[in-house]
Amino acid sequence: MSGFVLDPRLQNDSVSIMVTGLCDLRLSKDARWPWLILVPRRAGITEIFELTPLDQVLLAFETELVAKALKEITGATKINVGALGNIVRQLHVHVIARFEGDANWPGPVWGFGRAEPYEDAKRDELTAKLREALSS
Amino acid sequence: MSGFVLDPRLQNDSVSIMVTGLCDLRLSKDARWPWLILVPRRAGITEIFELTPLDQVLLAFETELVAKALKEITGATKINVGALGNIVRQLHVHVIARFEGDANWPGPVWGFGRAEPYEDAKRDELTAKLREALSS
Repeated sequence: MSGFVLDPRLQNDSVSIMVTGLCDLRLSKDARWPWLILVPRRAGITEIFELTPLDQVLLAFETELVAKALKEITGATKINVGALGNIVRQLHVHVIARFEGDANWPGPVWGFGRAEPYEDAKRDELTAKLREALSS
Repeated sequence: MSGFVLDPRLQNDSVSIMVTGLCDLRLSKDARWPWLILVPRRAGITEIFELTPLDQVLLAFETELVAKALKEITGATKINVGALGNIVRQLHVHVIARFEGDANWPGPVWGFGRAEPYEDAKRDELTAKLREALSS
């Protein structure tokens, strides 16, 4: 964990929901989609395979816990999971709830249009539900 | 494994390279990017978290073996990994080699433009290198 510093673009574009065993779990500041980002708290990692084998298993486990919770909370048609990193190289995994007819359905969310800000109440409700689901 | 049948769109848009412990490893018929697809040979699965815990670990392990091999073979700037499934619901994981300045860099590959066919020699060379890297 030593030496880990969150990339300033991730810091700016998302807010922390909770710290998991491996990751900082963050919510994207984009109300168009319930969009979570898992950032392993490890320094100098760009690709998943650069993590230790144990951390790779932890990341897979935490990603799927979060994906399952997001599906249950939102009733999403499909969960999209991706680790791209073409712009921000610090390893981060996207977990996004998608719905038929959403802003870019069935295309990907990355690089599409502009983020729309959350209403505070809507963001707080989603955040509270996620914390509850992931703590039980 | 019983009951697994490959989705006809995956069958049509990609060719099998090898069978791994869990997956059918396939090469997309799109020469714009070295683009691999791992399809777990399990029936009726749409989301990664619907796999058994062991299969989830196997999928993570095989995905990262493939990602590492693809990075080494191609010298890619960045590997993109994603499980979207908005169109084809049968669970499949994309592993794509991306290069600065490629056809949609730094945007995602999904839904962008039209696939370009491989020259046979180029496809066969990539396939042979992958089989060798993943067998050693």
